[in-house]
Amino acid sequence: MSSNGKSYTRTRPSARSVKITKKLDNLPKNREQTPEDNYPKLKIIPLGGLHEIGKNTCVFEYEDEIIILDAGLAFPTDGMHGVNIVLPDVTYLRENRDKIKGMIVTHGHEDHIGGIAFHLKQFDIPVIYGPRLAMALLHGKLEEAGVSDRTELRTVRPRDIVRIGKNFLVEYIRNTHSIADSFTVAINTPVGVVIHTGDFKVDHTPVDGEFFDFQRLAEYGEKGVHCLLSDSTNAEVPGFTPSEASVYPNLERIMATASGRVLVTTFASSVHRVNIILSIAQKLGRSVAVVGRSMLNVIAHSRNLGYIKCPDNLFIPLNAIRSLPDEKVLILTTGSQGEPLAAMTRIANGAHRQISIKQGDTIIFSANPIPGNTIAVVNTIDKLMMQGANVVYGRHHGIHVSGHGCQEDHKLMLALTRPKFFVPVHGEHRMLVQHSKTAQSMGIPRENMVIINNGDVVELTENSIRVGGKVPSGIEPVDSSRTGFVRDDVLKERQQLAEDGLITVAVAVSDEGKLLAIPETHLKGVVMTADQATFKQQIVKVIEATLSDRWSELSRSFGNGEGNQIDWVGVRTEIERAIARLLRRELQSNPLLVVLMQTPEESPDSTASSTTETPQPATGRRRPRTAARVAS
Amino acid sequence: MSSNGKSYTRTRPSARSVKITKKLDNLPKNREQTPEDNYPKLKIIPLGGLHEIGKNTCVFEYEDEIIILDAGLAFPTDGMHGVNIVLPDVTYLRENRDKIKGMIVTHGHEDHIGGIAFHLKQFDIPVIYGPRLAMALLHGKLEEAGVSDRTELRTVRPRDIVRIGKNFLVEYIRNTHSIADSFTVAINTPVGVVIHTGDFKVDHTPVDGEFFDFQRLAEYGEKGVHCLLSDSTNAEVPGFTPSEASVYPNLERIMATASGRVLVTTFASSVHRVNIILSIAQKLGRSVAVVGRSMLNVIAHSRNLGYIKCPDNLFIPLNAIRSLPDEKVLILTTGSQGEPLAAMTRIANGAHRQISIKQGDTIIFSANPIPGNTIAVVNTIDKLMMQGANVVYGRHHGIHVSGHGCQEDHKLMLALTRPKFFVPVHGEHRMLVQHSKTAQSMGIPRENMVIINNGDVVELTENSIRVGGKVPSGIEPVDSSRTGFVRDDVLKERQQLAEDGLITVAVAVSDEGKLLAIPETHLKGVVMTADQATFKQQIVKVIEATLSDRWSELSRSFGNGEGNQIDWVGVRTEIERAIARLLRRELQSNPLLVVLMQTPEESPDSTASSTTETPQPATGRRRPRTAARVAS
Repeated sequence: MSSNGKSYTRTRPSARSVKITKKLDNLPKNREQTPEDNYPKLKIIPLGGLHEIGKNTCVFEYEDEIIILDAGLAFPTDGMHGVNIVLPDVTYLRENRDKIKGMIVTHGHEDHIGGIAFHLKQFDIPVIYGPRLAMALLHGKLEEAGVSDRTELRTVRPRDIVRIGKNFLVEYIRNTHSIADSFTVAINTPVGVVIHTGDFKVDHTPVDGEFFDFQRLAEYGEKGVHCLLSDSTNAEVPGFTPSEASVYPNLERIMATASGRVLVTTFASSVHRVNIILSIAQKLGRSVAVVGRSMLNVIAHSRNLGYIKCPDNLFIPLNAIRSLPDEKVLILTTGSQGEPLAAMTRIANGAHRQISIKQGDTIIFSANPIPGNTIAVVNTIDKLMMQGANVVYGRHHGIHVSGHGCQEDHKLMLALTRPKFFVPVHGEHRMLVQHSKTAQSMGIPRENMVIINNGDVVELTENSIRVGGKVPSGIEPVDSSRTGFVRDDVLKERQQLAEDGLITVAVAVSDEGKLLAIPETHLKGVVMTADQATFKQQIVKVIEATLSDRWSELSRSFGNGEGNQIDWVGVRTEIERAIARLLRRELQSNPLLVVLMQTPEESPDSTASSTTETPQPATGRRRPRTAARVAS
Repeated sequence: MSSNGKSYTRTRPSARSVKITKKLDNLPKNREQTPEDNYPKLKIIPLGGLHEIGKNTCVFEYEDEIIILDAGLAFPTDGMHGVNIVLPDVTYLRENRDKIKGMIVTHGHEDHIGGIAFHLKQFDIPVIYGPRLAMALLHGKLEEAGVSDRTELRTVRPRDIVRIGKNFLVEYIRNTHSIADSFTVAINTPVGVVIHTGDFKVDHTPVDGEFFDFQRLAEYGEKGVHCLLSDSTNAEVPGFTPSEASVYPNLERIMATASGRVLVTTFASSVHRVNIILSIAQKLGRSVAVVGRSMLNVIAHSRNLGYIKCPDNLFIPLNAIRSLPDEKVLILTTGSQGEPLAAMTRIANGAHRQISIKQGDTIIFSANPIPGNTIAVVNTIDKLMMQGANVVYGRHHGIHVSGHGCQEDHKLMLALTRPKFFVPVHGEHRMLVQHSKTAQSMGIPRENMVIINNGDVVELTENSIRVGGKVPSGIEPVDSSRTGFVRDDVLKERQQLAEDGLITVAVAVSDEGKLLAIPETHLKGVVMTADQATFKQQIVKVIEATLSDRWSELSRSFGNGEGNQIDWVGVRTEIERAIARLLRRELQSNPLLVVLMQTPEESPDSTASSTTETPQPATGRRRPRTAARVAS
């Protein structure tokens, strides 16, 4: 410990840091008391991360300046067919791109930095500040997306203070979390100091020896924190979150008593956990093969920056494990959440090219399933066990702890910062409600806090907090190619296709109202009660009946007394209705119905224009054309 | 307590019971020692319930006789689009229908009786024995499905012994579980006594005062149990499952301190829980409105049979709640699992016609989410909270306990029955493995147990247990109309439609290889990177290019020197391939592609036969016909 009671090793304020010593007098002064709408207002607008866990993105706006705190991604929920990742709707930022002065990144998790590369395709961010590990990971993402020239990345160290625009001075305060190099930020604004905790837990025995900078938080608390925005992930859980260090002895015991190979899976981004696993392997004389792109990526960056320290010869290539005795091997993989393409999942499915399970393997799941992933995880565990592995999983082994604080951690944060106003963030609705109750139990009045949703505009003045409006706050689902946005209507069509399938019917009708051929019916994803052939014959009968019942009427509709002016759109509509009735009656389901009409002659414009979305170049051709429409 | 230490009230063996006093000498004797394959063999074949929780269905077969123990249903997992319920593949029973002598039902839960009505459409079951509540519920299901004449339902009471066929004598032994009237069965066979626990927990203070019949189990244990099949649901959980009675004080405290309306949701089939809720309501002077079809159904049957005892005037119709003060109202609903159509879910979505949430409502979730339902449940809770309700949920309130025993319950069952052989059932793989470890810890040798999957044929002789084969054991997913089975290929098509959507292209080509009209393209559920119009023009270009590049070749393929013998199938295939390449390049996705070809003349038979699955009646028509094929 140094003389001032701190033991930061790499975290001393760097030379370029600016100390805050007094109320910052170069920020605009608050004006005299005026009607509420004319107060100087700080707007806080979360675009993601509220009423959900994921895609954390928060806008701070004062007059003509905006700074953004983090910009993450989320993963699709059930029913988002073919969606790979989910981004927040950033319409508000697109429309206010000229105001954007910069971004603050708190730490390097995907739900805090994963959206940035996508957003940079839509608007520039002049500068992004963040800790070293986060900036290293982000740099790789921007390079990969080809947008690294759209911004400037600047690395910060603990207690660095950065100025962004005229109105924002941001101090980085070291916290403890499951990834190395994680920060709480104090945002000094003309309205007062706003502290955003970022993601945090209180870990008094951090794996990397980098302690939570309570001194700095307390100093802000002493001077006066105007508003606290605090991580609510574990707001429903009483007590303290155990230290990351508590998993060490449990993992060590399991690995030390394993007689064969050991395979461990955890979140690649849990740098501290990875560190623990690697140091146990080293201690036990097991060589480590790393499997999975994100695991390799995070370990490379972390070693490069010194967050993971281990000798080069601890690692072996995956294809070299056969040359070692089983008890000298540890395989560290992705897939702790049963993700379909991750290494552990492919191993469980017998689909990994280089690893297959053998009798005597010990497999450790050093992670709890995130809600929604439970089924995928237990299925993976079952498959591994069936192949003869001893799988160690579940809460009672003490091999996983959360990176987020529980109720007592939240109380300590509130006690240190003593905020006037409070906004619980980073959580689903009931977590926010519970966090607000925790804050009320410590004396913050209910009227000094707001429970908000994405898109809500929190207006913070010197004397008040309120929700003053709403900006667009939906989602932008990105498809598996990572290039296109999956619109809502597309998702709805996919849902219907998924639920009930599809029927296409191609019908050729002469201008005397006779079928020119047996209509072709194709079924995809449709459940039949009778046999298909009979059902298709029913469709033919229905079409014939429709034509014979309705022809005289429909062929007269456009009649000018000179012949075949046929209402082809009407014909198709009638056929569609008749088939739809048949479907309801026979299948009790609602497949998407596509009727493609072939009409023998070039049809009048009225028909053409209503049945095509494509610009219709003049072709000069006669004879059959196709009129198709989709009825759903 | 009566003099013999029992306190059964309605459970004394009825007059028609048959006591077992000695080894049953009217069953065929075991033969002399012979090579293993010639031993008299009892086959135990689970068709559902192994490696899963759900659709419990177990076949016991001896020589030419089969009895079935329970026949339940399961609910679909992710990716089973449009599937409502899941049944086991009962091919084995269909093919051996002549052997089926009867069925034993252990209790009235859906995962034990929900499949019977479906199976009775495929084969007869001469007689079904079961407890009163289960038989009452089953009778309703069979009536509804119109199959009540396909079997005979016979009600049993505790310690009843029923003979089925020549080889099976089955004794019903009262156990404790979350539904009233639940049983463990002792199946006396020529090979020995097999005890199947059914679903059970050890509850020493059952809500209905009906104690677990340990005496009868112990008697079998004393005489010798050949094999035990035991419920593994909570095999991973240490300790005992708490008594159902333990939730009473917690629910009472919450309801007693609620100032407004109280809404409670739980499993309709948890008759004991419903009983507790109703008696607290009565005690607190709250009238009860019951919402949800299954809740109404179970309460009606349970009251009818005396399993739920409460005065008629405790209940009020839902539309009468407005006439009472809020603190006099309790609403008991389905929807504890966030099921989309259940009452509580509709209330949360603001979609219930008669109930909307008001400030001050207290809503109690007296059930834990089943894995897979977590997201749906927490979303429902969030929505209710957002409307101002105080929602009480989660484990730490003590308002839910499991109906299945934990490790110590399992040990007690093993200790009482002292089986020679052991088969863990009713659980996913890792639960079965853990249950087998529990059994090994009590001295049953590993080689005397088998861990099995659905369809495995367990062969039990006097001296051995082994898996001796496999019968069909897949699933039969039933669609939402509850009439059709959703085949595997249909599910796969739906999955592709859901993931990537659908593109239909209708192409009309002259017999000179020219487009007769601009091809019509329709997209459903497809993500566009460029705009649709441009993309559709690209498709047109690709088709034109294909025709001009390949026409001379394809129009010669069938050429006999006399003119237009065109390989229309080849043309379509070429067009499909070209469009598929375009899709991969432009969309990086794999939508289902349907190309419908219009050819100007009646095509040769070779084309017709390869492009239609419908019998092709002779039509005598000429001119356009449609050739469609689906490429995926």
